[in-house]
Amino acid sequence: MTVETPAATAPSKGQHSPESILPSFIAGSWWTPENPQKVTEINDAATGELVCRISTEGLDTVAAVDYARTVGQAGLGELTFHQRALILKQLALHLGQHKEPLYELSDKTGATRKDHLIDVDGGIGTLFAYSSKGRKELPNSNVIIDGQVEQLSRDGSFIGEHIYTRLTGVAVQINAFNFPVWGMLEKFAPSFIAGVPTIVKPASQTAYVTEACVRLMLDSGLLPEGSIQLISGSARDLLDQLDYRDHVAFTGSAGTAQLLRSHQNVQQEGVRFTAETDSLNAAILGPDAGPETPEFEAFIKAVVQEMTAKAGQKCTAIRRTIVPSEHVDTVVEALRARVESRAVLGDPRDAETTVGALASKDQQQEVTSAVQRLIEAGGEVCFGGPGGATGNGDAERGAFFPVTALKFSQARTPEVHQVEAFGPVTSVLGYTDIDDAVALAALGGGSLVATVATHDPETAARFVRGIGSHHGRVHLLDRDDAKTSTGHGSPLPHLVHGGPGRAGGGEELGGMRGVKHYMQRTAVQGTPDLLTGVTGVWHRGAKANTATPETVAAGEAVHPFRKSLAELKIGDQFASGLRQVRLEDIEAFAESTGDTFYAHTNEEAATANPFFPRRVAHGYLLVSWAAGLFVEPVPGPVLANTGLENLSFLTPVTYGDSIRVTLTAKQITPRETDDYGEVRWDTVLHNQNDEIVATYDVLTRVAKETPNWAE
Amino acid sequence: MTVETPAATAPSKGQHSPESILPSFIAGSWWTPENPQKVTEINDAATGELVCRISTEGLDTVAAVDYARTVGQAGLGELTFHQRALILKQLALHLGQHKEPLYELSDKTGATRKDHLIDVDGGIGTLFAYSSKGRKELPNSNVIIDGQVEQLSRDGSFIGEHIYTRLTGVAVQINAFNFPVWGMLEKFAPSFIAGVPTIVKPASQTAYVTEACVRLMLDSGLLPEGSIQLISGSARDLLDQLDYRDHVAFTGSAGTAQLLRSHQNVQQEGVRFTAETDSLNAAILGPDAGPETPEFEAFIKAVVQEMTAKAGQKCTAIRRTIVPSEHVDTVVEALRARVESRAVLGDPRDAETTVGALASKDQQQEVTSAVQRLIEAGGEVCFGGPGGATGNGDAERGAFFPVTALKFSQARTPEVHQVEAFGPVTSVLGYTDIDDAVALAALGGGSLVATVATHDPETAARFVRGIGSHHGRVHLLDRDDAKTSTGHGSPLPHLVHGGPGRAGGGEELGGMRGVKHYMQRTAVQGTPDLLTGVTGVWHRGAKANTATPETVAAGEAVHPFRKSLAELKIGDQFASGLRQVRLEDIEAFAESTGDTFYAHTNEEAATANPFFPRRVAHGYLLVSWAAGLFVEPVPGPVLANTGLENLSFLTPVTYGDSIRVTLTAKQITPRETDDYGEVRWDTVLHNQNDEIVATYDVLTRVAKETPNWAE
Repeated sequence: MTVETPAATAPSKGQHSPESILPSFIAGSWWTPENPQKVTEINDAATGELVCRISTEGLDTVAAVDYARTVGQAGLGELTFHQRALILKQLALHLGQHKEPLYELSDKTGATRKDHLIDVDGGIGTLFAYSSKGRKELPNSNVIIDGQVEQLSRDGSFIGEHIYTRLTGVAVQINAFNFPVWGMLEKFAPSFIAGVPTIVKPASQTAYVTEACVRLMLDSGLLPEGSIQLISGSARDLLDQLDYRDHVAFTGSAGTAQLLRSHQNVQQEGVRFTAETDSLNAAILGPDAGPETPEFEAFIKAVVQEMTAKAGQKCTAIRRTIVPSEHVDTVVEALRARVESRAVLGDPRDAETTVGALASKDQQQEVTSAVQRLIEAGGEVCFGGPGGATGNGDAERGAFFPVTALKFSQARTPEVHQVEAFGPVTSVLGYTDIDDAVALAALGGGSLVATVATHDPETAARFVRGIGSHHGRVHLLDRDDAKTSTGHGSPLPHLVHGGPGRAGGGEELGGMRGVKHYMQRTAVQGTPDLLTGVTGVWHRGAKANTATPETVAAGEAVHPFRKSLAELKIGDQFASGLRQVRLEDIEAFAESTGDTFYAHTNEEAATANPFFPRRVAHGYLLVSWAAGLFVEPVPGPVLANTGLENLSFLTPVTYGDSIRVTLTAKQITPRETDDYGEVRWDTVLHNQNDEIVATYDVLTRVAKETPNWAE
Repeated sequence: MTVETPAATAPSKGQHSPESILPSFIAGSWWTPENPQKVTEINDAATGELVCRISTEGLDTVAAVDYARTVGQAGLGELTFHQRALILKQLALHLGQHKEPLYELSDKTGATRKDHLIDVDGGIGTLFAYSSKGRKELPNSNVIIDGQVEQLSRDGSFIGEHIYTRLTGVAVQINAFNFPVWGMLEKFAPSFIAGVPTIVKPASQTAYVTEACVRLMLDSGLLPEGSIQLISGSARDLLDQLDYRDHVAFTGSAGTAQLLRSHQNVQQEGVRFTAETDSLNAAILGPDAGPETPEFEAFIKAVVQEMTAKAGQKCTAIRRTIVPSEHVDTVVEALRARVESRAVLGDPRDAETTVGALASKDQQQEVTSAVQRLIEAGGEVCFGGPGGATGNGDAERGAFFPVTALKFSQARTPEVHQVEAFGPVTSVLGYTDIDDAVALAALGGGSLVATVATHDPETAARFVRGIGSHHGRVHLLDRDDAKTSTGHGSPLPHLVHGGPGRAGGGEELGGMRGVKHYMQRTAVQGTPDLLTGVTGVWHRGAKANTATPETVAAGEAVHPFRKSLAELKIGDQFASGLRQVRLEDIEAFAESTGDTFYAHTNEEAATANPFFPRRVAHGYLLVSWAAGLFVEPVPGPVLANTGLENLSFLTPVTYGDSIRVTLTAKQITPRETDDYGEVRWDTVLHNQNDEIVATYDVLTRVAKETPNWAE
C-alpha cells in the first residue's frame, strides 16, 4: 500500500502517469492498492489512448466510514451553517483559479469545451449559489427551525415546533460518469453546509477528473479535516458499513439504483437512500405553438441543444419530442435543418467540434443497441442512426455516435417510453389533444423534467396540472423566456432535481431543501424556556431580561438598542408604557398620510363593518407608534430597520384605547464577512386590557461593536 | 359474493352476527367472500368470545385500485383544499355523534374507556385539527406553492418556484391493531385534503372497529364517491397493482415493514412507501432532576402512564427508562409505588379497571417471550413479569399481562436496546453522564420519541443536539409543562410522527407537512405570466389590469378596492402617482409617532451611518404613505387590513425623494363558511428613479358581495 500525506502538494495536473493507478483519498491519506489482481483501464473517449488505471482492491471501507463519523463529524461540527457556507465560496474561488487543468483532463472524456462549462463551471457555480443562499436563508448556528410554533396548551406553557439537526453519519455519493465535477459538487455543497462529511465515489470512466478536483479541494486547505474522502473505483463493501445515520445519494442507471436500494442495510438498517436516474424526459410542443410561432423556433432550438450537449449524455436530455400529430414532419425537418447547420462531430480538442464523443466504446455500443431496439419496435430513422456519419471523429478508436432522430407512427409504442438511448438521440411522437399529450408524457413512468412550449397560460396550467406529479421539474418555454431560459436540461442549485418513478424517486438541490436532506426533522415539545435553550431563538413566553422606560431612565437597565452584538443576548427586552389613541390622532394620521380608508374616517361605515366597533386606528398608526414607544433616539449600534415580517392585527384599537409594546431580541445572526449582523425582534402590541393587538417581527441590522460615531 | 349497496343504512352497531364475515368496501359496494376456504376468527381480548370472522378470499384488488384512480380521483379532484378540509370537520361532527357504538365495539379489543379517548376521540380530534389547519394554512385551490420565487434571469422574464400537486394514484394505508380508529383517521385526513383517495387495510385483530367507523363515514354521505375503500383482512396482491403514482403508509412491526419495502413494486416501480414501526423509545431523567425535584415526580408519572395506557401497546411507549445510575433503585421504587396505587388490571367493561387486556392471546404470548428474552439477557424483574398477577382479569380466556419493570446492571446489554415487549413493560437503565445517556438512547437505533426530564435549558440543548437526529420527536418535561404536556406517547396532528432507523424511517402528520406526503413537489420554470396561470397566484412581472388615479377619476377603470370577490381578479392593479417626502414630513412623523430614531432626526449620525445618505424617512412613514396612496376612502367591499408580510426596505428614501406604490391582487382565498375571504396584495414602492424602495404583501379581508352599507 502506498500512502501519500496530503501536505501542500501542487495541483494534480500531470501528476500520474497513465500506467499508474488512480489514487483514492481515505481516512486522511492518499492511497493506492499495491499489487491489485483486477485493474480497469480507462481510455480517452475520442482517441482511445490510455488515461489511467483503476482499482480499489483492499480499500478499507470500515476505516473510511469510521473516520467520517468521528474526525469528519467533529471538524464540521465546530462550524456554523454560515461558516461552512463561506468556505464553499472560498473553495469555489480556488477551483475557479484552477479550471484549466480540469478542462484539459475533461477533454479526454469526449466532452467539448462548451460541455466543460456545464460540468466544471456548473459545479463551481453550485458552490457559489449554496454559499450565498446558505448565508442568506439559514441561521448562523447549527439548528434550523422548520415552520411555526404550535401552541399545544392554552396557557402557553407547552409548545411544539420542528427543528432540523444534522445526521451523525456520512454522506456517500455515488455518481454517474457524465458530470465528474458538477455531479460531485452538487451533492457536496448541501451536505457540507449541513455539516455531514462526504465520501465521493465517482464512476470509473471519468474518475480521473473527479480525482483532480478533489485534489484541488484538499490542496486548498480550506476544508476541515475529514470533510471529504474519495474512492476512485469500486465502492466494494462500503454499504455494509452504513446505517440510519448515513445517507447515500446515487446518480446513474435505474438498474444500479435498484441494486443499491435492495441492499440489506437500506432495507433493514434505515440507510437514507436517494436516487436520481436517467429518465425518458419529454418536450411537448403546445397546440398553440405551430410552425410560424416564436415558440416553435424556441422548441426546435431546445430539442437540438439537448440532443447535442454532452453528446446527449444527460439524464435530463429530451428523449421524447411530443408534438401535435400534424406537425410531426415539420418538426423532424426543422430538427434536421438545425442539426445539419450546427452539429459538427469530432474530437473535442478540434476547434470546430460542437458535438464530442460518448464517454467510452462501451457507451457507444449501449446507445447503438438501444437505438436498434427502438427501430425494431417501429421507429423510423429520420436522420443519423447507427452506422451514420461520425463527422470528423475517429470512427474506430473514438466513441462517436451520430446525432439521431427517430419518429414513431404509433405514439403508444411501449419501447419509445421505456428504452433510453443515452446519447444524441430523440424520438418524435404525435399527439391529438392536450389530454393525449399528458397521457403520453406520463407513459415515461416518472421523469426528471419536461419542457412545454406554449404562450398560453391556460394551456400551461392544464399541462402542469396533468404532468406535474409525474415530474420533478417542468420547464415552460415561450417567446418571452426563450432567450433568458436556463434551458430544459440544466438542473439549477435553486430548484429541486430528481423525479418520481423511473427518475429514481429522489430529490436533490432545491436550495436549502437540499441541505435538509442531510438532516433529521424532529418535533420538539416543551416550555418556551426549554425550546429557547434548544434552538438559540427566543420563544414568546420564555424568560426575558426586561428594561422599561423607568428602569432605563434610572440607569438600572440598558435599553437593548444600546447594545452591540457583543453585548446583546436573546431575551433582552424592552417593555414600554401605555399611550392612548385619541380620535384626533386617527384623524391627524389620516390627514398626514392620506390613508382615509373609511374604517378610520367614516363613523357610520366603520360601525357597520363587521370587524370594527366604530372608527379605529390605522394598523400603520399602531406600528408607527409602537416604533415611537420602543426606539432609542441616541445614536447607537442599531444601524437600520430592514424590514418587518408576519404582522397580524388581532384586536382593533378604537379611540380611547391605549397601546403598549414589548420588543424582545429573538434571533441574532452575526455576519461572517461584515461588522454587523441581523437581529430579529419579537414584537407584541397590547391594549389597556392586556389583549394582544398585533404581533410581528422587526428586522434590524446591528453593529458587532458600537461604531465610533455612535458612542 | 354478496354485494350490499351503500345506501343510507343505519350505523353498523349489531349489524353483523359474530359468525358472519366482516365486510370489505370495494369499488363502491360492501363485499364479503362467498365460501372462503380460510377464515380467521377474532376473539374478545378480555373474554375470549368470538367477535367476528375475517377473510378476503377473492377480493378484486385490481378493481379497487382502478376505482380509486378513476372514480376516487375524479370526485376529489372537483373540490379544493378548503372544501375537502371542511368535509373533514363535518365528518368529525358526524363521528362524534356516533361515538358510543364505537366505544362498545372497542371494549372487545381489551382497551379501557380511557384508552378509547386516545383512539376514537383522538381520531376525531385529528380530523378537526386537519380541517382547521387546512383552511388556515392552504390556499383555497389545488396547487400549493412551496417557498419563494427564484429569479433565474436578470430581467425577470424567467423565474422558478416549487409547487405541490396531488398524486394521481391511491393512498393505501396498512395499519396496526392498536389504534383501529385513530390509525385510520390520522392517515385519512392528510390524504383526503391532498385529494388522494384511500384504501384502508386495518389489522385483522381489531378490524371490526375500523369497519364500523368506515361504515359511519360512508353513511354520513359526506364523502365524494371513491374517497375511501376498506379491505377487512389480508390485502392479498394489492401491492402488485401499485406504482409510483401511489403511496403506501404502513404502521406496524419492523418485520412487516421490511417485507413490504422489499416488494418489487416498491423496489422497481417507485411506489412511495413510508413506515412507522414500533421502536424502543427512551425516557431520560436529566442529571438535574433528582428525587426531590418536581421533574422527578413528573417523570415517574409519565413512565407509568406509558406503561399502562393501552396496556403498553403503543408504538411510542417508553421501553427504556434511562436514569442517573445513582437513581436507578429510587426510580424503580417510585414506579412500583405508583403502579401499585394506580394500576388495576381487568376487563375494560369493569368500572374499576385502569389497565385492560392485550389485544389477543397471540400478543400475550409475544410479550411473554420478549420479556423472557430480556430476562435471559440479564434483566432483573423488579415487579410484574410473566406469570405475575393479572388482577381482576380472566387469566385463562383474557389476554392479560401484568405491569412490569425490569432493570439491567449492564446498560449496554444489546437486547434491552433491541427486543421490544409490546405490552405494559419498561426496562430501567443507569447512565453516568449526559454523553453516556445520549449514547444509550442512540443504541435504540432510531426511535419515534424520547422524553427528557430537565428544567435546565442548557441540559435540554445538549440532549436535543445529541439525540435529535435519532428521533422523530423529543418531549421536554419539566415542572412548568408537567401539567399541560400532552404526553410522551401522544402523536399530535400538528407535529410529525415517525422516526429514523428502527422506527421505520417514515414521517406522518406534522400539520400540512402530512398533506404534502400525498403530493409531488415539482420545480416550475417559466415567465411570470405562465407561472401566474399555473398557480392561480399573480407573480410580479406578469400582466396586470392597471387602474391609476387618473383612469379611476375619468371613470375608465375601477379601483380594485371597489371590487368584491365576485368581481376581483388576480392581476387587478392600482398604480399611484408620486408623492414627495419633505424634511418637514419626516420631522412631523417623528414628532407625532414618537419615533425619533437618530436616522430620522440626527443629520450627523444618519450621515455617518453606513446605510443612509443623510436623514431618511421612517420605514413606517413609507408604508403609511403607501396606504394613503392606494386606499379608496369610499366604503366598499374591502373590510379590513389584517396584516402585512415579508416587508423589505431595499432603498432608503431621503428628503427630496418621492415614492409611488403599485398594488396588485396576488392571491384570492374565498372562505367556505363566511361571506368574505382573504385577498393578498403584492405591494411595491418605487422612488422617483424607479428604484424599488420596498416590497411587501398587504393582507386584507374582502366581502364576497359588496355589503349594503357600503353601496
